[in-house]
Amino acid sequence: MKNGLLFLIFLLPVAFSQAQEKPGAGDRLTIKRIVDETMINSTAYENLRFLCKKIGPRLSGSDNAMKAVYATEKMLKDAGADTVYLQPCTVPHWVRGAKETGSFTAGSKKYLLHLTALGNSEGSKGKTIEAEIVEVKTMEELAVLGSTVKGKIVFFNIPMNPVYFNTFRAYGESGIGRRSGPAQAAKYGAIGVLVRSLASNPDDHPHTGATQYNDSFPKIPAAAISTNDANKISTLLASGKKVRAAFKTNCTMLGTAASFNVIGEIRGTEFPDQIVDVGGHLDSWDLAEGAEDDGTGIVQSIEVIRVLKATGLRPKRTVRAVMFMNEENGTGGAIAYLANAKQKKEQHVFALESDNGGFTPRGFSLDMSDEQIKRVQSWAPLFYEYGVYDFNGRGSETDIGYLKETGTALAGLSPDSQRYFDVHHAETDVFENVSKREVDLGAADMAALIWLVSEHGL
Amino acid sequence: MKNGLLFLIFLLPVAFSQAQEKPGAGDRLTIKRIVDETMINSTAYENLRFLCKKIGPRLSGSDNAMKAVYATEKMLKDAGADTVYLQPCTVPHWVRGAKETGSFTAGSKKYLLHLTALGNSEGSKGKTIEAEIVEVKTMEELAVLGSTVKGKIVFFNIPMNPVYFNTFRAYGESGIGRRSGPAQAAKYGAIGVLVRSLASNPDDHPHTGATQYNDSFPKIPAAAISTNDANKISTLLASGKKVRAAFKTNCTMLGTAASFNVIGEIRGTEFPDQIVDVGGHLDSWDLAEGAEDDGTGIVQSIEVIRVLKATGLRPKRTVRAVMFMNEENGTGGAIAYLANAKQKKEQHVFALESDNGGFTPRGFSLDMSDEQIKRVQSWAPLFYEYGVYDFNGRGSETDIGYLKETGTALAGLSPDSQRYFDVHHAETDVFENVSKREVDLGAADMAALIWLVSEHGL
Repeated sequence: MKNGLLFLIFLLPVAFSQAQEKPGAGDRLTIKRIVDETMINSTAYENLRFLCKKIGPRLSGSDNAMKAVYATEKMLKDAGADTVYLQPCTVPHWVRGAKETGSFTAGSKKYLLHLTALGNSEGSKGKTIEAEIVEVKTMEELAVLGSTVKGKIVFFNIPMNPVYFNTFRAYGESGIGRRSGPAQAAKYGAIGVLVRSLASNPDDHPHTGATQYNDSFPKIPAAAISTNDANKISTLLASGKKVRAAFKTNCTMLGTAASFNVIGEIRGTEFPDQIVDVGGHLDSWDLAEGAEDDGTGIVQSIEVIRVLKATGLRPKRTVRAVMFMNEENGTGGAIAYLANAKQKKEQHVFALESDNGGFTPRGFSLDMSDEQIKRVQSWAPLFYEYGVYDFNGRGSETDIGYLKETGTALAGLSPDSQRYFDVHHAETDVFENVSKREVDLGAADMAALIWLVSEHGL
Repeated sequence: MKNGLLFLIFLLPVAFSQAQEKPGAGDRLTIKRIVDETMINSTAYENLRFLCKKIGPRLSGSDNAMKAVYATEKMLKDAGADTVYLQPCTVPHWVRGAKETGSFTAGSKKYLLHLTALGNSEGSKGKTIEAEIVEVKTMEELAVLGSTVKGKIVFFNIPMNPVYFNTFRAYGESGIGRRSGPAQAAKYGAIGVLVRSLASNPDDHPHTGATQYNDSFPKIPAAAISTNDANKISTLLASGKKVRAAFKTNCTMLGTAASFNVIGEIRGTEFPDQIVDVGGHLDSWDLAEGAEDDGTGIVQSIEVIRVLKATGLRPKRTVRAVMFMNEENGTGGAIAYLANAKQKKEQHVFALESDNGGFTPRGFSLDMSDEQIKRVQSWAPLFYEYGVYDFNGRGSETDIGYLKETGTALAGLSPDSQRYFDVHHAETDVFENVSKREVDLGAADMAALIWLVSEHGL
């Protein structure tokens, strides 16, 4: 998604030529009201402080996740939503257990391993996984090695490509090791997997994230290791040394748990049955506070409700803020949301999700018909003065992606992506690393786009 | 400077219509070589780590500032500069002394004051400044109060305007309290000054910065206080309470010290007498590591030299990287640089400075003739795929600003500005708050622009 900025060359002239699509002066003034109200009075940052500092990690199925449900229910009421309710869903209940331990050795030298179990993975059940490390840089390399990895630890060392401007492109490509590496390595008889963290910076923090086992093969222990450790191991192997690792992970999947999406809405004045969704995901990984992933998306969505009420703007269509549960390791919330929408025959005209961090917005990615894309792009000039110029990205986000089945037009907020994978799924994703202005700008831009759709349709 | 993004409406069509100015495919490929080399092999981040973690704060006149001189001299040599040398300059030697202490009281309640002396200010010389606080929100309010502030502490509470997209605009406007507040308050007989920190976030960190006394009036103690304290005091005053403050600052101006600019260059192959400058400033405030202000500008400028050498590109004009000393509280380095340039009748065709933080670049601000602006803007499409699109800002930066007198075309790197005033001049301006990718992208874009000017002139 978000294919760079070539739109500047190709799309702006199109937008300029569509005089009939130009937004009116009234929209420009309304958006300024929305932006000013947000930048002056936003409660997003203080709500985020609460989620991060008073609650903390919000892994699906945990007590903290339930605390976050009730906290955001209150925040939506305080924001002035006409209706606030909880929507039941079922989520996996995975627990990390005691902190992982590990080391690697080359000859007589022993090094501490900075590791964290992959989400949804099975732990080593009290045993230490101890074996020689075999490094692979692609899934094809693993296939060539085949059963020679039997009894060994496969090390997926697939760095994020630093020359891609859009870090999500690198994340998508390099993430294959984490997502399907353990299942593939088990197929060939490996006894454990270590994965290079999907991170931009060289440092000592491992970054977790979900993996997907294949039920036909053993569920072998799997952990992410820090980029510094990955580089060290790779250098040792390149020098011809044998490298062995020993590690324990203590995680397990306990089954499922009952949980909730949290929903707040402003009823539309003219077309109340037409729903315009805005959301983020309420769950987070357990290593830190889920500040940028996705605390910011949550508080921005709540702020959209607050700013529409505070400015006295009354949307023609129903604006609904959705705090999706369980994006990280199951999408139980999104599945329940779609099922409800279908059962009630709800009409979702548009859905916007913020799940790429709360950094300075640069644009919106769009997943809708060509006609609808043109219409949204005709609004782009309304956003230029707020630094939002890129409406060329395609695709949207995980939770609202389920609504595609109902024909809903989808969009994602596209913040600056350079810094995201410094903190993503790591212990550094804390409130202190968030900038108030960046979060507020994102909320303002989201409210502006939601307003335009609620006012003009799509 | 950097007047938003309206250029998208007004300037792109101009650039597109100038077919004869369009950059060639060769330039596009060269820039890709530059960007890829930087993103893969940059040493900027490790150089920054050294400046921040092995040296630390680099206030002009300090031992650390001299350590930074020798460290960057070595870095420039390691980067492959043909010539590296130190250029003598004279700088003020201001010292903070022992950490400041302070409190404020309303009735019987006493609160800790988070404060830091303003740069170049005189301390309270062992005494405690203790008096009633008078809040003013503008310089005009102070003038109206006039001599009623005699014997009191004037509190300049001028928040940065949150509705400006460009935070430097807010900094420029609200900075008047820090820059000239103490001199003005002394004129009316005040005995001390507290200034609301120029910061975007509500927090407990005071942000320092230089003030300028007026020699006709007493040099009264002056300190910045945290935004949280400023809000608290203002709220207490608004509730009708009298608020008193007591504080000690222990700083003093010791006179002047000898110091250096650090210079490294690649001699031009065709026009060696035509100089293309790229720089940042080597000194920093003393509260932290000067990571974003302006360690990033320094390591980016060194990286420009490294990447040109590493790619084997040989600039037609001489490319000179300049580490200016003393931007923060005297510009002694810039003054010496201009004097040398004039004395040696050097021909400086272009100068680029990075001193707005090492955040993701969005554009360049330009200070040059209209013809030159058009020429640089004709190159803009070469930068779009790297997220750099805004060539509409005017003005440049402090150090190279001195070269305006010699007719040099000037430019500043314009990174995303939202996060800068969270850390600017505060104890939070540390290496940990810098993103490697953001710094590298800035270095790559700087190298690309420097290359274009060195190749094509201006």
